[in-house]
Amino acid sequence: MKIKQYSFTLNLKRPFNLAHGSRTTTPIVLVELSSDGKVGYGEASLPPYLGETQESVAKFIDSIPELNFNPEDIFGMIQQIDKIAIGNNAAKAALDIALHDLAGKVMNKGCSELLKLPEMDFPITSFTISIDTPKNIRERIKEADSFHFYKVKLGGSNDMEMIQALTSETKKPFSVDVNQGWINKYKALDFVKMLQDLNCQYIEQPFQKEMIKETLWLADRASLPIIADESVKRLDDISEVDGIYHGINIKLMKSTGITEAMKMITLARQKQMKVVFGSMVESSCGITAAAHLAPLSDWVDLDSSFLISGDPFRGAEIIDGKICHDKNLPGLGISKVK
Amino acid sequence: MKIKQYSFTLNLKRPFNLAHGSRTTTPIVLVELSSDGKVGYGEASLPPYLGETQESVAKFIDSIPELNFNPEDIFGMIQQIDKIAIGNNAAKAALDIALHDLAGKVMNKGCSELLKLPEMDFPITSFTISIDTPKNIRERIKEADSFHFYKVKLGGSNDMEMIQALTSETKKPFSVDVNQGWINKYKALDFVKMLQDLNCQYIEQPFQKEMIKETLWLADRASLPIIADESVKRLDDISEVDGIYHGINIKLMKSTGITEAMKMITLARQKQMKVVFGSMVESSCGITAAAHLAPLSDWVDLDSSFLISGDPFRGAEIIDGKICHDKNLPGLGISKVK
Repeated sequence: MKIKQYSFTLNLKRPFNLAHGSRTTTPIVLVELSSDGKVGYGEASLPPYLGETQESVAKFIDSIPELNFNPEDIFGMIQQIDKIAIGNNAAKAALDIALHDLAGKVMNKGCSELLKLPEMDFPITSFTISIDTPKNIRERIKEADSFHFYKVKLGGSNDMEMIQALTSETKKPFSVDVNQGWINKYKALDFVKMLQDLNCQYIEQPFQKEMIKETLWLADRASLPIIADESVKRLDDISEVDGIYHGINIKLMKSTGITEAMKMITLARQKQMKVVFGSMVESSCGITAAAHLAPLSDWVDLDSSFLISGDPFRGAEIIDGKICHDKNLPGLGISKVK
Repeated sequence: MKIKQYSFTLNLKRPFNLAHGSRTTTPIVLVELSSDGKVGYGEASLPPYLGETQESVAKFIDSIPELNFNPEDIFGMIQQIDKIAIGNNAAKAALDIALHDLAGKVMNKGCSELLKLPEMDFPITSFTISIDTPKNIRERIKEADSFHFYKVKLGGSNDMEMIQALTSETKKPFSVDVNQGWINKYKALDFVKMLQDLNCQYIEQPFQKEMIKETLWLADRASLPIIADESVKRLDDISEVDGIYHGINIKLMKSTGITEAMKMITLARQKQMKVVFGSMVESSCGITAAAHLAPLSDWVDLDSSFLISGDPFRGAEIIDGKICHDKNLPGLGISKVK
């Protein structure tokens, strides 16, 4: 099996403003695995706050020993890769995604068939609205009128204004993602109580992940589900948040890829937890990989390929607000456009 | 791959009395698949009301064309077997279980690893109390004191007496399984309201599966989950009961085996349905196969190997009321005792 990798920069159509910073680009590394005359594609998305860089991904991938590609034992290969070093979750995800794409192509099976998933309807995805002025928010909603669900980034200085702008423009359901941005638990509860009377579906990561007592306090009093994002990366983290949060946001870049994301869904469901399937800012490579798993979740947040320009891949598409994909195409079912 | 099969009779320690009949034995067919010097075991359990017989299983298995055993493509083999004829669910289950056992042995992997399941605690299993006199029920409970959960078969002529006998003897949680035995929806609701005030966890299949309106009426008014058993066999049945029942009872003999049972769990969870993992009267072969999947469910009813004498296999054991098994043993991790 041959490995090629190259760095790439995804450009956002508009600045992406979160509680902890703003940016207009996201660095990624694209991986190409080849065997039996087929090529499998994978992607590592590297938002700056997670600590991995294009250099760290390159170093990790260069450290992989020669692997014999066995399309029917991806799991064994991923176990070997996982043992090389701790962390490096996005780098591992890129390899896991590429292995699924390659195995599917070699075996002429779609990734959903490879994962033995039951037939499920296409889910709707939220459209993400980052921290912005009321005027810009109203514009974003008008432009994204084909979506049926919005996700609003809060934790800035104008949370109330943002919600007012949203609800004055649309009555469609929405969720809020605080990205650890709230500090005062009493203010948080007041805000959540207001959201309960609106069409809000869930609250994501209200406090810093270390603020366990405050999260528990809020979750006990809120009638909206409180979802862990930054507090959960991999399978073993689920038991840490069980009994504190009502659900988890699974992203391939945190979970080290498809294999462990599947296990996370299984375990979360066994624990009666809600599941959001999300992504970082990713190209259609990572988004399409996630789209195969998305029907298993309660809420889906996979609009990233809508937010970038110059997508290097074509794959899953958003049609009438739903994330749709021809699951019978071999592997992930993506094609490279440049 | 070579296939051997032989008929066997499981003897129950005590008569098994249900709403639709009583019996002291259950016919089974044991299947042995061999390849690469290894043997995989499977079992078809054939309670009379399901329509399959030792003869129909033998006929189905004899009709299987020569199959090349590929331990890494059980799924493909099962798809081929499923297409041979409709129905024959227990026969298909026997083959599916044996294929998992054999693949695990050939690859030196436990069945749970084969299924890529996350690490999960051993679950408690209920102890089944069939329709009986109050005196016998109290004796059964005393004998099964190591269990922490009981399942009471109702739908006979003495439902109230049975519940009184149970609750006078123990305060432990229990569930009731009506096996389609109730007829009058008003009486059913009164009974369920009484059960709500006791330590009852769920109600299984209160009415005939055709009584959809009555089930919906009861499920709307009951604060205990109503679980479908006879109403659900395979994956495609889940959408039929979604919105009527609160959950489903999955049994390998109904689902055609492990492969489809996994898909059923996945789909039921995505639909926020409760999951019971049950069995027919089965030896430790079928029970151990089910034990690998049991931690994924909300409630487990796998005490069958406790209820029979002369078990032809050793496998999963019930220790302090929990269904325990060494998941690292290759395949199912069972051994033949005669």
